[in-house]
Amino acid sequence: MFRPEIKVVDCTIRDGGLANDSYFTLETVRGVYAAICAAGVDYVELGYRNSKKMFSPQEFGPWRFCDEEHLRKVVEGIDPRGTKISVMQDAHKADPKDILPKEESVVSMIRVATYVKDIDKAIALANNATDKGYVATINIMSISQETSPFLEEALKQINAETKVQAVYIVDSYGALYSEEVHYLVERFQMYIKDKEIGVHFHNNQQLAFANTIEGVIKGANFLDGTLYGLGRAAGNCPLELLLGFLKNPKFDLVPILDCIGKTILPLTLEIDWGYHIPYMLAGIRNQHPREAMEWMEGPRRNDYVSFYKKITEALQQ
Amino acid sequence: MFRPEIKVVDCTIRDGGLANDSYFTLETVRGVYAAICAAGVDYVELGYRNSKKMFSPQEFGPWRFCDEEHLRKVVEGIDPRGTKISVMQDAHKADPKDILPKEESVVSMIRVATYVKDIDKAIALANNATDKGYVATINIMSISQETSPFLEEALKQINAETKVQAVYIVDSYGALYSEEVHYLVERFQMYIKDKEIGVHFHNNQQLAFANTIEGVIKGANFLDGTLYGLGRAAGNCPLELLLGFLKNPKFDLVPILDCIGKTILPLTLEIDWGYHIPYMLAGIRNQHPREAMEWMEGPRRNDYVSFYKKITEALQQ
Repeated sequence: MFRPEIKVVDCTIRDGGLANDSYFTLETVRGVYAAICAAGVDYVELGYRNSKKMFSPQEFGPWRFCDEEHLRKVVEGIDPRGTKISVMQDAHKADPKDILPKEESVVSMIRVATYVKDIDKAIALANNATDKGYVATINIMSISQETSPFLEEALKQINAETKVQAVYIVDSYGALYSEEVHYLVERFQMYIKDKEIGVHFHNNQQLAFANTIEGVIKGANFLDGTLYGLGRAAGNCPLELLLGFLKNPKFDLVPILDCIGKTILPLTLEIDWGYHIPYMLAGIRNQHPREAMEWMEGPRRNDYVSFYKKITEALQQ
Repeated sequence: MFRPEIKVVDCTIRDGGLANDSYFTLETVRGVYAAICAAGVDYVELGYRNSKKMFSPQEFGPWRFCDEEHLRKVVEGIDPRGTKISVMQDAHKADPKDILPKEESVVSMIRVATYVKDIDKAIALANNATDKGYVATINIMSISQETSPFLEEALKQINAETKVQAVYIVDSYGALYSEEVHYLVERFQMYIKDKEIGVHFHNNQQLAFANTIEGVIKGANFLDGTLYGLGRAAGNCPLELLLGFLKNPKFDLVPILDCIGKTILPLTLEIDWGYHIPYMLAGIRNQHPREAMEWMEGPRRNDYVSFYKKITEALQQ
């Protein structure tokens, strides 16, 4: 019943770090890491390895940089079983020199997040990673706003110029419906010939899990999720739902449930991710959640009509 | 872009009433009614018209019975525009004598909820309703546990023996994935020849909205939703998401947003619907949410591992 080619990537700490400037305690990160390893999930993404020239270490927590010394504190004494570690680099905010040779690192996979316009930077970072011995992916963000023919050109370039293992569809705005997911996976498959397709969805319209299923149905084999959907704004595809759907007997749901109850639920007191009307409206309108996040921080967070008028009137100006 | 045949049914008060024994204040019900009318939604379901012999009026609020005098207090002074009123009867808990002739009622549609085993009772209630001048539907509950060939037999009977306008797929357990929705709509279409197919989904796995879309894609034309997903346990398809997807210019989202902020959000302090791990587990395992609801009322509501063991060990006995 299950498809053995599928790789599941937990990115709770990495995507969740967009909601708290990557300030998780070491205890939280170790709790997530231990649960993902015990559950048999393929990869766990512990944060970004972005440049300290682009992000101030005074303003961002350690999981924005994922120094090797911090990662080693996470893994110490925990049996990884088969789980491997991933970190993400932003194409326009990362330095290839921050990637050590694979032998000197606990990291196995480098995922490069990019817009189509930065594809050459992304390819350079991905090649830097594969040259140094890592598995790499290129993740195309804001896919719902990337247009033809530039997207197709970028896909051709990735196919010809890199050795990445997967190319991701990233629905940063939580805007896609199932028919668009089908269309995009087919489009990617036209150009990406010897690499896998990956999918990463946001939950603005409560479609992150559903769209991940649609990706699976069309052949995507790299699947992202986070514990209890933790992530920026409306959050992500809940990993626990994804594992329940996949039915691969290698996955064990119990450590995931335990970690959600003990480690993730307490975070709801600090981070307000999940389904909220302003995020939903941003998703429906195919917009970055930035404005919605600002509104949610303000004094009128539940005055949805004013928010709606603000974003629709801005459009008419 | 939109499909004019589609009818949207708001069942906030009816399905939400399963979470609070139908004890909404008149002010809340009027607020919802006014918003649905102003938004241009086709139907608003204000509760059940079930038998006072089966439910004690001491234990259940007025929206379990929807006496005409109560309904008239709801609609008084509010312009319905095109919105019509629906009430639901449970096949095994309702009395045909409680339905007045259409001319004496503010109700336009009677929806009969049933299990396959009660199909003869449901048909009698539906025929009672159409004979008295109402639009009627038959809604087959717990569809994820109804088996062949009994389901097909029931569909044949409905097709031959009733004048209902739609036959509903009701995923009471929030268990269905998209491929099962496709399969069921196709199955219904094989037997239901001159009536519409309806869909009503629960949100245990965050799939209620996604599955509604899949129903639309396959041809379902009666679509249920509730404001902010209010409903028993994990709740329903959020109406605001559905209207955003449908893109019919007759719908106005603004009154919906206003009502959610002012009338529905305050209810979150009293009713704890939405995505919770026990409901999710019940959905994945295709079980009634009863046990999960009991667990959520108990002292260990966030001890997910114990709940998981409880429901899986019960199965092994």
